[in-house]
Amino acid sequence: MSLLPLAQNARRAASALALASAEEKNAALHAIAAQLQACAPQILAANAQDLAAAQNAGLSAALQDRLMLNEARLAAIAADLVAISLLPDPVGEQFEASTLPNGLKIYKQRVPLGVLGVIYEARPNVTIDVAGLALKTGNAALLRGGKETLRSNLALVQAIGDALAQSGLPADAIQYLENSDRAYMLEMLQMDDYIDIIIPRGGAGLHEFCRQHSRIPVMTGGIGICHLFVDETADQPASLRVIHNAKTQRPSVCNALDVVLVHRAVAPQFLPRLVEHLAPAGVTFRADAASLALLSGSPAVFPAGEKDFDTEWLSLVLSLRVVDDLNQAIDHIAAHSTHHSDGILTRDPAHANQFVAKVDSAAVYVNASTRFTDGGQLGLGAEVAVSTQRLHARGPMGLRELTTYKWVIRGDWQVRE
Amino acid sequence: MSLLPLAQNARRAASALALASAEEKNAALHAIAAQLQACAPQILAANAQDLAAAQNAGLSAALQDRLMLNEARLAAIAADLVAISLLPDPVGEQFEASTLPNGLKIYKQRVPLGVLGVIYEARPNVTIDVAGLALKTGNAALLRGGKETLRSNLALVQAIGDALAQSGLPADAIQYLENSDRAYMLEMLQMDDYIDIIIPRGGAGLHEFCRQHSRIPVMTGGIGICHLFVDETADQPASLRVIHNAKTQRPSVCNALDVVLVHRAVAPQFLPRLVEHLAPAGVTFRADAASLALLSGSPAVFPAGEKDFDTEWLSLVLSLRVVDDLNQAIDHIAAHSTHHSDGILTRDPAHANQFVAKVDSAAVYVNASTRFTDGGQLGLGAEVAVSTQRLHARGPMGLRELTTYKWVIRGDWQVRE
Repeated sequence: MSLLPLAQNARRAASALALASAEEKNAALHAIAAQLQACAPQILAANAQDLAAAQNAGLSAALQDRLMLNEARLAAIAADLVAISLLPDPVGEQFEASTLPNGLKIYKQRVPLGVLGVIYEARPNVTIDVAGLALKTGNAALLRGGKETLRSNLALVQAIGDALAQSGLPADAIQYLENSDRAYMLEMLQMDDYIDIIIPRGGAGLHEFCRQHSRIPVMTGGIGICHLFVDETADQPASLRVIHNAKTQRPSVCNALDVVLVHRAVAPQFLPRLVEHLAPAGVTFRADAASLALLSGSPAVFPAGEKDFDTEWLSLVLSLRVVDDLNQAIDHIAAHSTHHSDGILTRDPAHANQFVAKVDSAAVYVNASTRFTDGGQLGLGAEVAVSTQRLHARGPMGLRELTTYKWVIRGDWQVRE
Repeated sequence: MSLLPLAQNARRAASALALASAEEKNAALHAIAAQLQACAPQILAANAQDLAAAQNAGLSAALQDRLMLNEARLAAIAADLVAISLLPDPVGEQFEASTLPNGLKIYKQRVPLGVLGVIYEARPNVTIDVAGLALKTGNAALLRGGKETLRSNLALVQAIGDALAQSGLPADAIQYLENSDRAYMLEMLQMDDYIDIIIPRGGAGLHEFCRQHSRIPVMTGGIGICHLFVDETADQPASLRVIHNAKTQRPSVCNALDVVLVHRAVAPQFLPRLVEHLAPAGVTFRADAASLALLSGSPAVFPAGEKDFDTEWLSLVLSLRVVDDLNQAIDHIAAHSTHHSDGILTRDPAHANQFVAKVDSAAVYVNASTRFTDGGQLGLGAEVAVSTQRLHARGPMGLRELTTYKWVIRGDWQVRE
C-alpha cells in the first residue's frame, strides 16, 4: 500500500474546495452536523467497540473518558460545526491593496493553505473539529489518529464524506489514514508535493518525531511552561486570585500556570499567603531554597528538584522561586519558559512595559491569568492550535491561520524597465 | 568542532538585538557601510585570492563574474546598506488591537524572528545583503556560503563585526561558518533550539537537501516556471511587448517567462508574429505539435521535448503550446507551474477574473510582465527571497517577513470564568 492515491485525492479535493463559496462550505458544515445526528447509532456502536478494546488493553480511566462518545457529546460536536459555520470566512479577503506609480494595481488575496496533514492522539472529537475548521477555510485534510480510536474515527469520517457528497463538495476532502503503522506516518511526512502543513496534536514525543522526519513544514505548539512574576508593587489579594485561577481553573491544559516567581522584598509576606490560598484547592508546591525557608512547616510544600523549573505540570503542582528583581525574573523566564504564556503582576507601569518589551513569548501578560491564551478567549472564534513556534503564526491560531495569500497584479500591459 | 558555541552566541546576540532601537540598528548599518569602504583594500585582496583559486579550478566565466568584487561593486553594496537603513523598521509595530468584553486590552506586536540560518552559494554580496536585512529587523544570522567565496566572506564578516562592535551592538550578531564541510551544514540544520528559520539561496539541489535534513522550518523559493496565457481577446501588439519583456529583459532570473500558452482561435495569427518579434532578440522556441505546425520553417523553432514544459529555462528559450480554451490553460498551469508567477493577457474582464480566481500562484498577473514579482518592484523596499511555499509568506518577502509577533494582553487582574 502507498498513500499516494489518498494524497492525490486530497490535492484534487483541495483544488475544488478552494473555489467553493462561503455558502457552499457552510451548507456542508450543517449537512455534516445533521449526518452526525442521523448516524449516531452507528457512530456510538463503533465507539463502544473502541471503548471495549481500551478496557481490555487496560487504558487508564482518564484516557477512556477522552475516547468516550455519547449522545450528548455527539450533539455538542455537531453544535460546534454549526458555530464554525457562523464565523466569517477568511478565504477571498483582499488586503494591502495599492496602486504603484506605474499604474499596476496590486493586492493580496487570502486563499486556503491547501492540504492539511493532522496527526493526533486519542480524542475522536478532534476528527470533527479539524474537519470543520479545514472545510470552513477551503482546505482538504489527511487525518491520522491513534489506533485506539480507529473504529470511532472511521464512522465519523464516513459521516463527513456522505454529508460532503450530499452537499456537492468532494467527498474525499477529509480522508483518514486507516493503517496506523508508523511506516505510513513516515510516508505522510515525506509527501511535500501533496501536503502543505503538518499539525501534530499530542505530546512532546509526537512533535519531536514530526520535526525529525518531516519534509513538510510542521506547526507545533501546545506545550506551555507558564510563568507569573509577582513584583514588589503587585496588588497581593488580586495576585492571589489571578494565580489561583491560572493554576486551578483547568490544570491539565497548556496555558495553566507552572511557575510563580516572587520578588525578594515581598516574598516573606506573599509566599505564605499564596500557599494558604492555594493549598485548600489541592495545590502542592515545589519551592526553591529561598522559598522553602519562608514556607517551612507547610505539608503542601516540597523542595524543588533539579527539573522542577523545566516541567509542564498539567496538574495541581506549582513551582516557586524567589528572585532578586525584575531582570532576574526575565532571565529565569528566558531560560526556562517554552515561550507560550508568561506574565507579570505589578502596579508599576514601567515594570510592566519592561516585562512586555523583554519577554518574548507567544502571549505576554500584564495583570491577568495565563488561562486566556486560547482562540475562543482572545476573540478568534475557533482555535486550531496554540503555536509556540515563530513562523507563520504564533499563539492561538484561528481560521485565518489556516490560510495563505496570493499576490494579484492587474495591469494595463506594463513591462519592467 | 561543534557549532554549539556559534549557535549560543547567535541566540545571545539575537536577544540583545531584539531590544535595539531603530536608531541603533540604522547607525550600525551606516557603520558597516563605512567599514566596508575603509577595509576595501583587505576585502579586495581576499576576493582576488578567491578569484585566482576559481581560475585555477576552472570555474566558468559567469561564476567568476558572480564571485568578483571591485571598488564599484563594493560601493554599490555599501549604498544598499544605507538604503536599507532608510526603510521603516517593522519591529515594535502594534496591530490588531482590541478591547475584549471583559476589559482585557490585547494587541499583536512585531518582534524579530530570532536567528536566521542562511545557506547560499557563490555571490559574496549576499553576505552583506543578508546581514543588512537581518540587522535591520533585529535578527542575528548564521551564514554558510560556498567555499569558493570563503576568503571574501571572512573579510566581509570581519568588517561587519568590527562595525557592530563600534556601534555597541553584539559583534557576533552576524557569524560565518568557516568550515564548509557538509557535516557542519547538517549540524546547523538540526539546531532547532538555536536557529528559527533556514533560508537556502541557491539551486534546487540545495533546497532539496535542506528540506530533507532540516528540523528547522525552511523557507524556499526562487524557482519559477512562469506562464503567460494569450487568450482569444488579447491585444496582440501589447501582448508581444509584454512577452518580449518577460522573456528577454533578464532571462537568468526566476520571474522570467518560460512558457506561452496561446488560445487556438488566435494561434495561427499570433504565434508567427511572436516568433518574428522575439527571435531577433536571440530567443529560441520549443513548440508543441500544434504550435510547430503553425511555425514550420522558422530556424528558431524546435519541437518540444518531454520535459520542456517542466523546465525553468533561465535563458533565452521559450516553450509554446496551443490550448483549446481558458480552462485548458488553467489546467496546464496547475500541472506544470512552480506557482511562482503566472498571468493572462486578455481584454475580457470575465476571463481575467476566472484566471485570478483559479490560478493559485504566489503572483497572479493580468496584462503585465511576470518580471514584476520582486520586492523592490512591488513596493517592499527590500527583498529577502521570493517564497514559493505557502506557510509564513508567499511571493516577495520584505523586512516584515523577517519578523513574527507576540500577543500582548494587558489586564486589570482578570481571571477566566
